[in-house]
Amino acid sequence: MSAPTSDNAAPDWSGRLRGVRDYCARQGLDAYVSSSSHNLAYLCGFNGTAGLLITTPREHHLVVDGRYVAVATDVIEAAGLAEVRVERVERRYDATLAAVLTRLKAARAGFEAEHVTVATLGMWERAAGSIVWQPTERVVEGQRTIKDDFEIAVFRRAARALSDVAREAGAWVRAGRPEIDVARDIDAAIERAGFSAPAFPTIVASGPNSAHPHARPGPRRLAPGDLVLLDFGGILDGYCVDLTRMAVLGQVDPRAGALFDAVRAAQSAAIASVRAGIAASTVDTAARDVLAARGLGDAFLHGTGHGLGLEVHESPRISRADSGPTDVLEARMVCTIEPGAYLNGLGGVRLEDDVLVTAGGCEVLTDAPRDLLVV
Amino acid sequence: MSAPTSDNAAPDWSGRLRGVRDYCARQGLDAYVSSSSHNLAYLCGFNGTAGLLITTPREHHLVVDGRYVAVATDVIEAAGLAEVRVERVERRYDATLAAVLTRLKAARAGFEAEHVTVATLGMWERAAGSIVWQPTERVVEGQRTIKDDFEIAVFRRAARALSDVAREAGAWVRAGRPEIDVARDIDAAIERAGFSAPAFPTIVASGPNSAHPHARPGPRRLAPGDLVLLDFGGILDGYCVDLTRMAVLGQVDPRAGALFDAVRAAQSAAIASVRAGIAASTVDTAARDVLAARGLGDAFLHGTGHGLGLEVHESPRISRADSGPTDVLEARMVCTIEPGAYLNGLGGVRLEDDVLVTAGGCEVLTDAPRDLLVV
Repeated sequence: MSAPTSDNAAPDWSGRLRGVRDYCARQGLDAYVSSSSHNLAYLCGFNGTAGLLITTPREHHLVVDGRYVAVATDVIEAAGLAEVRVERVERRYDATLAAVLTRLKAARAGFEAEHVTVATLGMWERAAGSIVWQPTERVVEGQRTIKDDFEIAVFRRAARALSDVAREAGAWVRAGRPEIDVARDIDAAIERAGFSAPAFPTIVASGPNSAHPHARPGPRRLAPGDLVLLDFGGILDGYCVDLTRMAVLGQVDPRAGALFDAVRAAQSAAIASVRAGIAASTVDTAARDVLAARGLGDAFLHGTGHGLGLEVHESPRISRADSGPTDVLEARMVCTIEPGAYLNGLGGVRLEDDVLVTAGGCEVLTDAPRDLLVV
Repeated sequence: MSAPTSDNAAPDWSGRLRGVRDYCARQGLDAYVSSSSHNLAYLCGFNGTAGLLITTPREHHLVVDGRYVAVATDVIEAAGLAEVRVERVERRYDATLAAVLTRLKAARAGFEAEHVTVATLGMWERAAGSIVWQPTERVVEGQRTIKDDFEIAVFRRAARALSDVAREAGAWVRAGRPEIDVARDIDAAIERAGFSAPAFPTIVASGPNSAHPHARPGPRRLAPGDLVLLDFGGILDGYCVDLTRMAVLGQVDPRAGALFDAVRAAQSAAIASVRAGIAASTVDTAARDVLAARGLGDAFLHGTGHGLGLEVHESPRISRADSGPTDVLEARMVCTIEPGAYLNGLGGVRLEDDVLVTAGGCEVLTDAPRDLLVV
């Protein structure tokens, strides 16, 4: 199979950076320090295990150590970002950060409170004594939730390719095969489909193991009557897609069949409820009510879905209203819809698709058959 | 090849937990909250993407959400840890954490400042208003640096298996092959050798790409005269080992040969300098002095090594004395020794082995030939 490749325009790097400069200006910050590697990748295309992007209302400084100077310089040039200057860390990141902020005469700097540890903030405070550090949350992540045309094109292509992988599942799920072998087949198919890597460790959970939502594939051999949960994802052009399908080996136990029907109905209700402008928790409620009505309220052990992007778990969280701050769905968000129900002894069922939120509803990006695959 | 498996005694779980209880008692803390997933895996065998272990001077509470209750209960039972009680998060981790600490009448609690973000600490402070939070660093990580008999047995086995993978390299490094194909061959060999996964994304960097210490394998095809850097690792029974070897295709450019000889000499000097009781930076100096004497001081773009364990980068850091706090080497530490030199245009060389620190020196765990592999 040939690898899907990008044929769309490049990301709007300058627009993404402008979003952070505008934030600085609006908040009266002299500087804003991005430290999350995914935020750096999003803002200027730099991928590294370390690095800081310092934004002022006028310019950007990408601070990297010796390992990354050449790569960072190439990336910034390829993106045509004349507004970004690469700065080399000579000894320690905190010292270079302090030196750049001092040179910029910054008095007040924002930082990513969800990515900076208490220990790192302490080092920054000691290195740059006079700076007032302003914690912020979800500034770049907020930008990242709304996908641009480039990203939507990648998602459509990736979701189709992952659905093609799911269509092959019937060839792998066989009685007598260990879960781990099935997982390896899935991983090989993900690679053949053109993904750069699985988006997370592939889950193959059979029989009693399927009752654990985050089971890891092990040596257990698939046996007649087993429910088999297949949850896998891929990274294409940096973006993650994620899919779960269910199979059964031979005769379906009537209780397992009822469990599947309940989750299928819950997922359909959740997908039907999606549209821009509603609280994400409304979608969770749509799924949860269906399961609760069938006596499975306590068997639904997680939230209904999560945003997708450069990370496999992003905003919006689609969870119970009482489990934390509620996100509001907006057009151009991409997220999973994946209710599940798990009964110790019997097994578990989850169904997961990826959707693009639109003004009036959603576009379901993954298109593999949702039926219980009877092998 | 059959998979290496553990034949040693199990980890001393009770001893590991006692270390944290003793720390609480010594520091006058009513409770200590571990939140790093690797620290939780080390202390009680629980592997999850979320979870908190609350330690008091007398007992432990493993706080997990619905996804993990069954798995956590099984793990704690299998480890025979009667001193650990599993607590289920009903809604939010911060609320359950606050409830448990209140029930324990804790007034002062330690936390892992290197793992808790500024945002999370803010949530904990709001949820448990009266608790005084005491930042700590490297409490469990400090325990983790000193490997027990179980861990040393795993490292010996893992290092031998990874060395066997390196011995196969001659079959993969061929002119005309893309780097990414060589990387896939290495990954497949790592799996065949019994590792559960690569310890990090395998690096295959050829020709000019080898000048970037953290290059990623790409479509570039190996060409005659190329230096080829192979850096790969594996996870065995949870523990990471890491190895780098160099190959050259055909005739060695004399400058490339000199670069290799310099790095080889630097690595030998560094390995010879290792022993318990010295500053880790001394080992870095040993390597750096050799390279500087050959005019390659500026070409050594990173530190000399890092500790290995449940994570591929752990303490001790073996870096320049002026690059941050210096660790002291102790017996039973396991670390890499991996100097390198990188020249834009020509290419780069790195050699990496894993060593166990002993009272009088070190045991080199990896035993694949260190010579430049001429293909």
